[in-house]
Amino acid sequence: MDGRKVVAWAARDTTGFLSPYSYTLRKTGSEDVVFKVLFCGIDHTDLHQMRNEIHSTNYPLVPGHEVVGEVVELGSEVKKFKIGDIVGVGCLVGSCGECLSCKSSMEQYCDSRVLTYNDIYKDGSSTQGGFSSAMTVHQRFLIRIPENLAPEQVAPLLCAGVTAYSPLKQFQESNKVFKAGILGLGGVSHLAVLIAKAMGHHVTVISSSDKKKEEALEDLGADAFLLSSSATEMEEAANSLDYILDTVPAVHHLHSYLSLLKVDGKLILVGVAPKPLQFDSVDLILGKKTITGSFIGSMEEMQEILEFWANKGLTSMIEIVNIEYVNKAFERMERNDVRYRFVLDVAGSNLE
Amino acid sequence: MDGRKVVAWAARDTTGFLSPYSYTLRKTGSEDVVFKVLFCGIDHTDLHQMRNEIHSTNYPLVPGHEVVGEVVELGSEVKKFKIGDIVGVGCLVGSCGECLSCKSSMEQYCDSRVLTYNDIYKDGSSTQGGFSSAMTVHQRFLIRIPENLAPEQVAPLLCAGVTAYSPLKQFQESNKVFKAGILGLGGVSHLAVLIAKAMGHHVTVISSSDKKKEEALEDLGADAFLLSSSATEMEEAANSLDYILDTVPAVHHLHSYLSLLKVDGKLILVGVAPKPLQFDSVDLILGKKTITGSFIGSMEEMQEILEFWANKGLTSMIEIVNIEYVNKAFERMERNDVRYRFVLDVAGSNLE
Repeated sequence: MDGRKVVAWAARDTTGFLSPYSYTLRKTGSEDVVFKVLFCGIDHTDLHQMRNEIHSTNYPLVPGHEVVGEVVELGSEVKKFKIGDIVGVGCLVGSCGECLSCKSSMEQYCDSRVLTYNDIYKDGSSTQGGFSSAMTVHQRFLIRIPENLAPEQVAPLLCAGVTAYSPLKQFQESNKVFKAGILGLGGVSHLAVLIAKAMGHHVTVISSSDKKKEEALEDLGADAFLLSSSATEMEEAANSLDYILDTVPAVHHLHSYLSLLKVDGKLILVGVAPKPLQFDSVDLILGKKTITGSFIGSMEEMQEILEFWANKGLTSMIEIVNIEYVNKAFERMERNDVRYRFVLDVAGSNLE
Repeated sequence: MDGRKVVAWAARDTTGFLSPYSYTLRKTGSEDVVFKVLFCGIDHTDLHQMRNEIHSTNYPLVPGHEVVGEVVELGSEVKKFKIGDIVGVGCLVGSCGECLSCKSSMEQYCDSRVLTYNDIYKDGSSTQGGFSSAMTVHQRFLIRIPENLAPEQVAPLLCAGVTAYSPLKQFQESNKVFKAGILGLGGVSHLAVLIAKAMGHHVTVISSSDKKKEEALEDLGADAFLLSSSATEMEEAANSLDYILDTVPAVHHLHSYLSLLKVDGKLILVGVAPKPLQFDSVDLILGKKTITGSFIGSMEEMQEILEFWANKGLTSMIEIVNIEYVNKAFERMERNDVRYRFVLDVAGSNLE
């Protein structure tokens, strides 16, 4: 017996154009939770997947991996949630549960992780994302949304937010003001600025575009702005930063950014570049510097960032749109015409 | 008033050919120690400097930065050493003493560090290395050689040894057997194998040459050998190592080595490549992996490795030669015809 019928919006081919699509959820397993989707964030990865630009896309594809919903049905063994709870799903809906990564609360690095959409679930079915009236997810991959957070505010935290939070949490020390660099200014990085500021860091936004200066300093509250295309500014800032969160999903030579780091400084990559990146070995050797990477965040960290968000009273900057606007929203996102994240009001839209 | 006259061997031009050369040491300052050179290690960096291949070489150039000697004169303020003590000098003879690196016992990363030769000392004089009858060095940059270590054994530890020890010491944990990879098999890496084994790690030597297998396993006691040119062996070893010490001083694409690391694994560069290195951003992001660098070691770490060497009863593999053989030794070193380090018996040679 299958689960309930849902209405979603799906891409049918490499144009990535989204239109209504009806499909059936899997039969509710004993540890599954069914929830009605309330809001869903819109991310660059969605667009790449819709256009078959990452790995082979199975059409029809229902995107959406920053999903907030309300529980409507529970499997027989689910004790953690009850009907009416507000829950969240990020990029993952499964992992092996047995490997060292899974056992160390780092299931995002499990080799058998199951992505929220365009992946194959353990039962052989295709996973489909949050641009849908409802979803069925194993309780292990759901988080609880604190009551004092608005659901639409939470959506961008479930992928973009935790992608920034996971690597930044290592720099939480009460007695040190870390000098932070945030490279780029988009979905992930605007949240990174807010998180780093809330952690008490001195935050410099680094961008190749002078247009971002006012936004960075006035809208987001960064402490400084560094124009990466200015050789003078870059030289003056040499050896000044403890870390740089590098969100740029494009090829860029790392030499000039590594030069901004102090001895023992870290450059943390979270944006996937389509071709190899380069650096000079002396950039690392002569300053004991590090290039590292970080992939989304763990389930534990997803829960943590929500507590952090609530405790610090933070507000993400979003633009809420209806599903009828979704193709237009992707167009605008592609040309960076959004501050800083679109969130779909799924429950408030007519999906048919 | 100048200090004493010494006889050394120096390169005069970019051929790098060494021949006798007489010069005068600086006047002994209040914190200076003058010592008669006993032994000096021979390193690839010497050859590059002798041939003007790193940065502008000032000729005549006296190489040698793994120097062991016997104290013959003390400045008025020197309390740490006495006449007859056996002392060691590595790559550094000066630093600012004021910066964060200097104050954190990481003076090797000081921007004003003074190299043992081919550099300018604070008084404006050129520094000259250990292929010399005697040297004058500030007491801060001398270490004490424990009595139970043979001076010729110690020489290679002062640069090559500490270059391996400094990054490996972070992996000393009594309750974990780290899975180590040592990439390359030369002066630094043969010591790295011995050090990692003595720390209790499971050590895999990684080399592109099958000829190194017997040496690695039988002479050095490595636990495993991995032929990097074999796609099958490399695939089988995927995701198996906690760290790789990469000693290769040439351009190599890091992708295949990063694939050997477990989640959260570290690739540590200690060999300077003459051109940029490449990696794929997903290599780091999807496994939380790290590329980092390390430069020689601190004065503290130089002292530590000698204690470590003595405590563990280790023996470096060296070939002792006289100064008359030095040009031939460089020739052989260049074609890797040495297991694994030449050490000059300076006191036992006729330098004239």
